[in-house]
Order: sequence, then structure tokens, then C-alpha cells
Amino acid sequence: MELILLTCLGITTLIVKIFGSIGAVSAGLDLGKEGPLVHIGCCIASLLAQGGPDDYRLKWRWLRHFNNDRDRRDIITCGASSGVCAAFRSPVGGVLFALEEVATWWRSALLWRTFFSTAVVVVILRAFIEICNSGKCGLFGKGGLIMFDVSDVVVTYHVTDVIPITIVGILGGILGSLYNYLLHKVLVVYNLINQKGRIHKLLLALTVSVFTSVCLYGLPFLAKCQPCHPSAREICPTNTGSGNFKQFNCPDGHYNDLATLLFTTNDDAVRNIFSSNTPEEFQTASLLIFFVLYCILGLVTFGIAVPSGLFLPIILMGSAYGRLLGIAMRSYTKIDQGLYAVLGAASLMAGSMRMTVSLCVIFLELTNNLLLLPITMIVLLVSKTVGDSFNPSIYEIILDLKGLPFLDANPEPWMRNLTVGELADAKPPVVTLCGVEKVSRIVEVLKNTTHNAFPVVDERVVPPMGLAIGSTELHGLILRAHLAQVLKKKWFLTEKRRTEDWEVREKFDWVELAERDGTMEEVAVTRDEMEMYVDLHPLTNTTPYTVMESMSVAKAMVLFRQVGLRHMLIVPRYHEAGVSFCSVTHPLHNYI
Amino acid sequence: MELILLTCLGITTLIVKIFGSIGAVSAGLDLGKEGPLVHIGCCIASLLAQGGPDDYRLKWRWLRHFNNDRDRRDIITCGASSGVCAAFRSPVGGVLFALEEVATWWRSALLWRTFFSTAVVVVILRAFIEICNSGKCGLFGKGGLIMFDVSDVVVTYHVTDVIPITIVGILGGILGSLYNYLLHKVLVVYNLINQKGRIHKLLLALTVSVFTSVCLYGLPFLAKCQPCHPSAREICPTNTGSGNFKQFNCPDGHYNDLATLLFTTNDDAVRNIFSSNTPEEFQTASLLIFFVLYCILGLVTFGIAVPSGLFLPIILMGSAYGRLLGIAMRSYTKIDQGLYAVLGAASLMAGSMRMTVSLCVIFLELTNNLLLLPITMIVLLVSKTVGDSFNPSIYEIILDLKGLPFLDANPEPWMRNLTVGELADAKPPVVTLCGVEKVSRIVEVLKNTTHNAFPVVDERVVPPMGLAIGSTELHGLILRAHLAQVLKKKWFLTEKRRTEDWEVREKFDWVELAERDGTMEEVAVTRDEMEMYVDLHPLTNTTPYTVMESMSVAKAMVLFRQVGLRHMLIVPRYHEAGVSFCSVTHPLHNYI
Repeated sequence: MELILLTCLGITTLIVKIFGSIGAVSAGLDLGKEGPLVHIGCCIASLLAQGGPDDYRLKWRWLRHFNNDRDRRDIITCGASSGVCAAFRSPVGGVLFALEEVATWWRSALLWRTFFSTAVVVVILRAFIEICNSGKCGLFGKGGLIMFDVSDVVVTYHVTDVIPITIVGILGGILGSLYNYLLHKVLVVYNLINQKGRIHKLLLALTVSVFTSVCLYGLPFLAKCQPCHPSAREICPTNTGSGNFKQFNCPDGHYNDLATLLFTTNDDAVRNIFSSNTPEEFQTASLLIFFVLYCILGLVTFGIAVPSGLFLPIILMGSAYGRLLGIAMRSYTKIDQGLYAVLGAASLMAGSMRMTVSLCVIFLELTNNLLLLPITMIVLLVSKTVGDSFNPSIYEIILDLKGLPFLDANPEPWMRNLTVGELADAKPPVVTLCGVEKVSRIVEVLKNTTHNAFPVVDERVVPPMGLAIGSTELHGLILRAHLAQVLKKKWFLTEKRRTEDWEVREKFDWVELAERDGTMEEVAVTRDEMEMYVDLHPLTNTTPYTVMESMSVAKAMVLFRQVGLRHMLIVPRYHEAGVSFCSVTHPLHNYI
Repeated sequence: MELILLTCLGITTLIVKIFGSIGAVSAGLDLGKEGPLVHIGCCIASLLAQGGPDDYRLKWRWLRHFNNDRDRRDIITCGASSGVCAAFRSPVGGVLFALEEVATWWRSALLWRTFFSTAVVVVILRAFIEICNSGKCGLFGKGGLIMFDVSDVVVTYHVTDVIPITIVGILGGILGSLYNYLLHKVLVVYNLINQKGRIHKLLLALTVSVFTSVCLYGLPFLAKCQPCHPSAREICPTNTGSGNFKQFNCPDGHYNDLATLLFTTNDDAVRNIFSSNTPEEFQTASLLIFFVLYCILGLVTFGIAVPSGLFLPIILMGSAYGRLLGIAMRSYTKIDQGLYAVLGAASLMAGSMRMTVSLCVIFLELTNNLLLLPITMIVLLVSKTVGDSFNPSIYEIILDLKGLPFLDANPEPWMRNLTVGELADAKPPVVTLCGVEKVSRIVEVLKNTTHNAFPVVDERVVPPMGLAIGSTELHGLILRAHLAQVLKKKWFLTEKRRTEDWEVREKFDWVELAERDGTMEEVAVTRDEMEMYVDLHPLTNTTPYTVMESMSVAKAMVLFRQVGLRHMLIVPRYHEAGVSFCSVTHPLHNYI
């Protein structure tokens, strides 16, 4: 059942990928296609998890099986991982990416699920590759399971090479954090433009697109032609499709190295620039132009109103940077320049995205050269460390910009000195409901507040005297959605009484209660219904997680984050009547 | 600072590994060496984390920096990962193994740390390999960074091959779970024997060792000699060190295939059996003998009083099984038998250990053939699924047997119907202390109970009347260790009073309070000291995590497990006086 779902997920993501890989090329823009893929993967996943799109009425009931937040989170994570897997043909890398960047809560079950979905993707991918070997599937069929294969290179490096490698790492870290910094500025500007309305969005996208096309076509004329090496293993020059030597505007027997990089899909460009044993192929000037161009494109393309990714642009920048560095250090070390390109790409990625393990595996699976692992690891660690000393990772930056209230894993320093009690006092006062509540009150509360849950409080009866003194007792927490359900179903009582469980069970079924929309539309309550009562007890969560009000926010946040709560009750330190409720929805609410 | 520590960790583990790899061979026993390595890695790590062995007085103060449980857990995890990395030269696999099997709590920080330590290991390993290329380091130098390299094989498989692959997976899963079942029985018997005392332990180990040696030396005589292929790429026959064709008792120009497998280190045996394009090398009979022998050895060796591992024996069994299957299915598929051996090993591992991602990566890094990835993934998933339907993973089985109260990630079904209140009532009643407690009482409590923490309770003063009515109020939780510290330091008051914070601070420093030993030895309290008082307030944790007694055990367990608690207070549902405390130490205590 679950497997079926994950399988569908894998397949759909993959099909999308194929069209994607054809589409991305046809678009005038020059953008990574894995960003959209990850995104698409997540969208499909969340659709599957919800059992179909919300607004149209095509929900499959059997899919409701996953209709709780945790499973939804998990399956969306799977979507992301299969997205990465489809983009880079790197299953394990996809799993790790999902775990390192996407997932907020790691469970071994999650590991297993992501692994399964990526396995499905890669197996079907493998099948497609076999079918498409004829090359009929556009640019999809090319270059088997490993995209940028450098396994043929004999990697020879010695302890002395640690120094140049470290340099690559450090520079990569600096460049990466610089990229983050600039991209942040650009995105701020873009947000202003995009808010101005559709026309502006469109114009922006158009300008960037035109600019890209102009550069890609115009710049190669700056590079001067080079004679083909007789020793070249590939046909030189070529004019069609991929290939390491493009003729472009050159006479026969010559090739234009810049055109070789710009006149192909990003994948081929990476393949060309990674290609090893070709020390003389690219001129410094062309590489420099390429590097600068891609820095600009990478900065201006990301924020516009088209789906675009970060990975490939950064890989391209990085590889160009690496190769340049390789040329600069040619005299000091024997490492092949293709490997320098690989290392440069890795370092820039780590410097900007601050991932370690997943990047390492993705690169392993992209390049298929295990002997590179030790140096790749050094580079990744160095540049991550350098980058972290400047600014947060690009993903965190984007999260802030989008204003998503993402709850970071480890608490801020200020949280240690503030108690949740004080935090709660700072918020608007709590709205509580009585165990048996008047309809009018419920309607009013739902209309006037945005809280997602309300504490339910009962009159406290002190045993000895048997009479209700003013103090109250906490019964539990009720969700806005459930209140809305009650109103929609008009489950009202004429007099103040406690209901039995069976009454509830025959009225509501679990699918309805799993719904999460607390909208007040199609609710119409007549005036005399307003006077009726609702017994909230059966619908209340009687054991919400609670913390003492004297607990530090940091500590409470750990609970909130680790257990994945949406609401948390704050009880006063003296265990007596009265309960203060912090609508943690705003300050501490967290999404996947 | 932290980096230094992790680096030391990596280096030490590695040095151990080298001696290990030399030692393991010299021992008469035939055992995997990665088990001990992981273990050694953890030991070193925990020593480093504690700042030196406890019993001797050589603790380095600067190491105390890590003297809290979480950091200790993390660094021990790093130890485990560098152990695996050192054993298989598979850094990423090490990280994933640590995350999938070892770590109870995953954090991205943890990911980063394990990655760093394995990086250190692999870099230094690489350096050692370079130094040892001369072959002076015993059997260490051989076979570069990739242990069982099969990258030279051209992997050709088609959609039709899915069937044989699935068969490999299914059988592997069945065999794996069978192995778990039998090993469990054997371990039970061994435990009985080992409990009888040292002599029995020694005898047991001796018998197994002798049995092993006899088999390893005797069995090759059963195999009949085979003529060397003229086409063989390796020298044939050889007599010394590693090599694919061992002469043993055969005439010149012939080799003994069983001796080839038995007369080498495990590593070389695996290398031989993985070796591809050698369809005729091994006879069915020899492989059968080898397989059976290793099943027996793998079962009898693990439990005895010598450090031994699970990985390599299982890999050997699996590869033999895979190759046999390959021979059986020779006519149906074109997959190379060496690859069958690899797949068989993978399937048996997954069938017994139930790991997915980490195994996948470890195999990738062992065999260095990325094209195998899709089929490996299928095999792993299939055999894990099959195995799970029979019994839990071998690690869980061993955990039970050792009686370690390991807290599983997801709660048992029965937990849903039981409230923590009921659970607490089932336990011996709670021992509480007063805010200002008499020394005699503390001593008595520490002597008579084994709890690791006690709730501290104050007289409750109700504001209006201002006089203490019988009811009490919870102040917090105090650790046994802190009580012991108080007694050792004789921090007593002559009269009942509250102390100031500075008094505490000048008396205890954080290192002492970070200590976790609640032992009552060097505590000697005189009779009149017994009459004195201690103010526990400053040493109390005033905000312990609490749950309502009506909460289901399952829900409470999630909190306990996710936040990684050691103690949890259970407060009654009516927020009034009186607190019931569940000494969760036994039922819910969890270790790393």
C-alpha cells in the first residue's frame, strides 16, 4: 500500500524529469533543472499525500491513509529525494540530500522510505536509458547512468598535494559565501519588483532571458579559434549536439573553446569542463569569460518567475573556477585540470550550500571516481568551514527571505534567559473555552481569533465541599478544525450535558477529523442554534504536551522541535487552578 | 578544540586498525575485524569524551569540555563511524552506518562531526597506503583504497535480469533471517557457558579456535586440483601471500580452489570470490564446502570471548551463496558470477542486519562499481523486506540478549492503552525529598534506593491564609550524583535555611557537577553531621519535563525518546497539590 504510493511517486517524478530535461533546454534561459525537479517531486508527493488536489473534488479516499502530518512530511521528503535522484541520477545522494537539507525529523523509517523511492526512480531511469539508447528521446538518452564520468582518470596525488587542495577549499568557501551574500541582495531587489504585479514579473523574466541568449550567442565571438589537436580522442571540430570541440565560427580544423562551453546543455558543458587529460583545450581567457558570465547568470536567473535551480549553475561556476586555479597552479602540482574542475565545483557547492555528506555522495555518483573521495572530503570540509564563518547557507537565506517561520534545530542564545511564561505574557491573552460551550461563543471565537487550537477548561469541583469554587481545571486542547467541523455538522445540544462517546463516533468519522481546514465558510448558524450548547469534551485532546511556565524558552523549544509539536500548553509552576495558554502558533510554529 | 578531539579520535582508531589488521591474521581464529574496530573506536571515543579512564587518575581537564551526555553520545557515534571507515576504507559508509545503526538521535551537527572524523581517518589511511606501498606493513599495504575492486567488470544487465536479481534478494533475506535465528540460539547457549567462569570461557574459545584451524587446514585436501587456465591474468599457481590461484597440495600448473579461499586473510578471500571473468575458477563442490564451513564458523565464532565481527563472515557466506546461485542460474542470465557474489553478499547482509542505505554505500565503496547501484538497491530492499517478515535485525537480537534496556524508536502497541499514571503505580512508590532536607535522610535514601534522581518537594503555602496546609508543591528534580557530591563536600547547614547562589558557586564547580557517579564510597558522615541540613533548592533542576498522568505511555515515550530524557516527572491531571513521580529509570531509561 505504502510501497505502491512511493512507487507512483518515483515514476511520476521521473516522467516529469524527462519532459523537464527536454523542456529546460528549449527554454531560452540557462538554468539548473534540479531545483524545479526537487520542487515538482515535493508537489507530487504532497498531492499524493493529500489524496488529490484540495480545491477540485478529485480526492481518492484510499490515499487518505496518509492523512496525518507526519506521514505527509515523510512522503514530501521522499518526493524531494526522488527529485534529486532524477536530476543527478544519484540515488544515494538523493537520500542524503533529503536527510541533510530537507527533513526536519530524521527517523530510520524515513531513511528506508526515501531509499525505496530513489531506488524506484533509479531503476526506472536505468530502464529508460536502455530504451533511449537509440537517442530518440531528445537529449535524455545521452551519457548513461553516470552523468560526468571521470573514472578513466588515473588520480595521482600525494601528501604534498594537500596544500593546493586546501587552497581550492578555502577560495571555494570564500567565493561561495560571497555568492550567498550577493544572491541575497539580488533576491531582495527581485522581491520588490515581483510585488509590483504580473507585468513586472514577466518583463523581468523576459529581460533576463534575452540577456542570457545574447550573451550565450555573442560571447563566443570573443574567443579566438584554436587548432584541433591531432591527439584529440574525440572528433574535432563538431557542430551538432554534444561534443568536446565545437567549430562555431572557426575554419575547419579549428574549434572555439568558449562555444564548446556555451553552445550546449548545462550537462554537456559540465562534461566538457570536467573532461580530463585536456590541459590545452581551454584558454584562460575563455574560462575567465565563462566564469564571470555564469556568476552573473547564476545571480540574476535564480529569483525570476521561472523555476530554476542552484545546483548546476554553481557546479558550472565552480568547475570554471577550479580549472582556472588548476591552470594557475599548473607548475606546482600534477593533479589533472579536470579534477581541479571537479574539486572547484565541490568547493563552491559546499561554500554556498554547506552540505557535506550529501554533496560528497552526489559528486561521487556524478563523477564515478572513488579515489577522489579523500580529497573531495577535505575540500568539502574546508570550504564549508570557511563559508560558515561568513554567513548562513543559501537555503537558510532563502527561507528567511520567503519569511517561512522555519524553526531552527538548535535554540538561539536569547532563548536561554527567557522563560516561556514571559513569552506567553508578551502575546495576546489566551482564549479558552468551557467544556460545554455555547454555540454563539464558539462562532465568535472562531471569527475573532486566528489561533489553531484552544484550551478547554472546566469548572473545578473541590471534593470536600462538593461545590464549584471560582477556580478552573484544564481539560485539554481542542483544534480549530474540529470546532469548525462541529459547526458544519450542527452537532448541537439543546441543554447543558455531557455526551457519550458513541454519539460522537456515529456523527464524525476519522477522515473528517483528519481534515485540517478551520475555514468558516459554508457554516450558517441560525439565531436559535446560537443559544444551543456543544460538548467539547469528546473532541478534546486531553493529554497535550505541557511545560512549566518557569521553563526556559530554549528548553521548551527543544521539546517543541524534537517531538514536532504544533501547540504546547504552558502550565503555571504552582500546580493549582488556572491555566495560561501560549498560542505558540506564531512564535514557535514550525513547518516541514 | 572539538576538531582536535575528533582528529585524535580518527588517528588513534586508525593506528589501532593497522595493528588490528596485522593481529587479526596472526590469531588462529577466523573472524571479521570490523566488529572489534567499531568497538575500539567507540571505546577510544568514550575515553576521550570522559577525558581519560575513570578509575585511574589520568583525566585531562581540557577534555572535560565534552562532559555532558549529548556530546559523549555524539563523539562515541563518531568513534563507531571511524571504526567502520577504518575497517572498510569506506568513509561515507561509515557515516551512514553510524547514522542508521548506532546513533539514537540524529542531528545535522552529528552528521557533520561523523563526516569529519571519517574524513580524517580516510586521509590518513590514504597516506599510510602510500607509505606502505613497498609492502613493508604486513598485509596492510595491499589493495589500495578500494578493498574489493570490481570496477573493471562491464556490468551488462537488462530489464529481464530483474527476476534473477529478485531471487537473489529473496533467498538472501531468508538465509539472513535464518542466520539471525540460529545465532540467537547459539548465543543463548554461549551465555550459559560463559557464565560458568573464566575457565569455561577460555576452553570455549580454544575449542572454536582449534576447530577453525583444523577446518581451514584440513578441508582443502577434499577439493581436487584444477589445471591453470593459460588465459589467467594472474600468476598461477602461487604459494605465498595473496593471489587468486593457490597451489597448496597440487602439482605444478595446477591450483586448489578451496585453498585459494581458505588459505588467505578474509579480505583476500572476498577479493578472490568477487573476482570477475573467472566463471570456471571455482568448482561447485568447493564453494559449497566453503559456504557451509563459513556458516558454521560464523555461528560458532561470534559469541566467544574474543572480539569478533559480523560483517566479514556474512560477506563471505553471502558471496559464496551468490556465486553458487550464479553457477546454478548460469544458463538464464549473462550477469558475471563475480557480480552474483557481490549481490549475494549484499543480500545476506541486508537479510541479517536490515540496513539499507549504509550497506548500499559500503558496497559501493568496497566494490567501486557505480553501475551496480540499481541492482544492489533492489537486492537490498527485497532481502530487507523478506527478512523483516521473519525476525528483527541481528543487532536488536543481540541487544535483547545482552539485556541492554534500549528504547526502540516507535512505541509498542500495548503502550497506547496504558497511561503513565498506571505505569507509575505499578512501580515501587516514589521517594521524594524536601527542599531543605536532613543529612541523615539523604544518606538513608541514597543507601536504600537505586533511583538516579529524586523529586524535590516543598511545603505549600497558600497565599490567603499564609499558613502551610498539608499539601506540598513540586520544586524540581535533583540528581543522585549531586546529592553524593553534597555529601562528599560536606556542604551542610547547621539550621534550616535557604542558601544563596554564590554559596553554591564557590563550593561546586561545573566539572564536578558534570560528574555522573552517585557512588557512596568515600562518603563518611559523622553522627552530629547526620543532624544537620542541606538546602537542595540551588542544586535542583527546577524545570524538568513533565507529563500528565493520564497521558498514554506511547505518547510519553515519544517525548522521552525524542528529547532524549533520563527522567520524566508525572504530574496528576488535576493541577493541585501532590506530585507522583515515576522512577522512569528502569522502564524507560535509554542508553546510546
